Amino acid sequence: MPLARVHNIAVSLDGFATGEGQSREAPFGHAGTRLMEWFFPTATFQGLSGDRERQAVDPASGPDDAFARRAWEGIGAEIMGAGKFGPPGWQRDPEWRGWWGDEPPFHTPVLVLTHEPRPPLELGETTFHFAAVEPREALDRAFELAGGLDVRLGGGPSSIREFMAAGLVDLLHVVQVPVLLGRGVSLWSGLEGWERDYEVESTSTPSGVTHLVFTRR
Amino acid sequence: MPLARVHNIAVSLDGFATGEGQSREAPFGHAGTRLMEWFFPTATFQGLSGDRERQAVDPASGPDDAFARRAWEGIGAEIMGAGKFGPPGWQRDPEWRGWWGDEPPFHTPVLVLTHEPRPPLELGETTFHFAAVEPREALDRAFELAGGLDVRLGGGPSSIREFMAAGLVDLLHVVQVPVLLGRGVSLWSGLEGWERDYEVESTSTPSGVTHLVFTRR
Repeated sequence: MPLARVHNIAVSLDGFATGEGQSREAPFGHAGTRLMEWFFPTATFQGLSGDRERQAVDPASGPDDAFARRAWEGIGAEIMGAGKFGPPGWQRDPEWRGWWGDEPPFHTPVLVLTHEPRPPLELGETTFHFAAVEPREALDRAFELAGGLDVRLGGGPSSIREFMAAGLVDLLHVVQVPVLLGRGVSLWSGLEGWERDYEVESTSTPSGVTHLVFTRR
Repeated sequence: MPLARVHNIAVSLDGFATGEGQSREAPFGHAGTRLMEWFFPTATFQGLSGDRERQAVDPASGPDDAFARRAWEGIGAEIMGAGKFGPPGWQRDPEWRGWWGDEPPFHTPVLVLTHEPRPPLELGETTFHFAAVEPREALDRAFELAGGLDVRLGGGPSSIREFMAAGLVDLLHVVQVPVLLGRGVSLWSGLEGWERDYEVESTSTPSGVTHLVFTRR
């Protein structure tokens, strides 16, 4: 059975997976890059990133990379929330084609959940589909697009939380980052006891983060 | 210089260090024992606990015990908030002598912060002092009582958060427990960026928890 998987979602100690005040200039709001510093020096990020963001791969990032790279293994499609595809209001900009330029890093179909669908958009090896559907139906459609492979739930946090609340997440990989953001979008709110249906493995790495992998029993 | 140290404060993924609805029957509110399961099988807890709570020490709890036992090393006094000394309203019960019976596990002076102070109470090797003072003054008094040793900030979470906000914590040992409580008393609220003045070390253990130790730079 193909799985619905979440990978590399970074969360602060106070539970925020992105900051407050997201905009075109500040995709993560006031959080800036505070949740992502562990990711930048990994081979996985450096393989994905454009020239502007390129830096040296830090060999000490190996353990983090071992987790990070799983996000691209065995995935046939991604589902993302409207908040990941663009800054607030992108639906009113017919020219908006996502953050990622002409060759987005997905290389699979991507289903964007939005109340204002538009025709499919093909960019390089990625085709974005747009639909106003609930999580259960979104997952059915994404499994069809994935052709027998797994589906990645790509975020943002509000979208992932909806799939968690609906019991639709088979694997959740969270990166706990030891910073306090104070405010933002919580990954965890309204999910008391969610962990009960899952096995959890915790692994701290030299970068100071902790990888938590929840796998459905 | 003696230090102000926090040890063994367990926090859920959503940031709660105790539950909602604390009472004499439910000292941790709706959280029950969910934040403490890692602690019960340690040699440290079994050495402290009364006969009723005694169970076998689990050898796999060794790494957790290595962190847990530090809470009793080099400590000359403890400061605790009113919420740790008793259930809501204990100030109106002149017979209330704390949760711990005739031989409390502190074996040092303990300064209880309460708006309704009472005379000192001696129980076994522990003497409870009661004072209505702010964190800075409380710490000065506790250092005097500690006779050159460190002071443990013993909780509850609201009390610890006040000392954190006032910049008075030299070492903070948090045990991140992979459960979601949904509600309760947050350790982290109002502390954006608090980690910037600290080095942090993260260590996951076989029990599934992660020990985070923040040490002031």
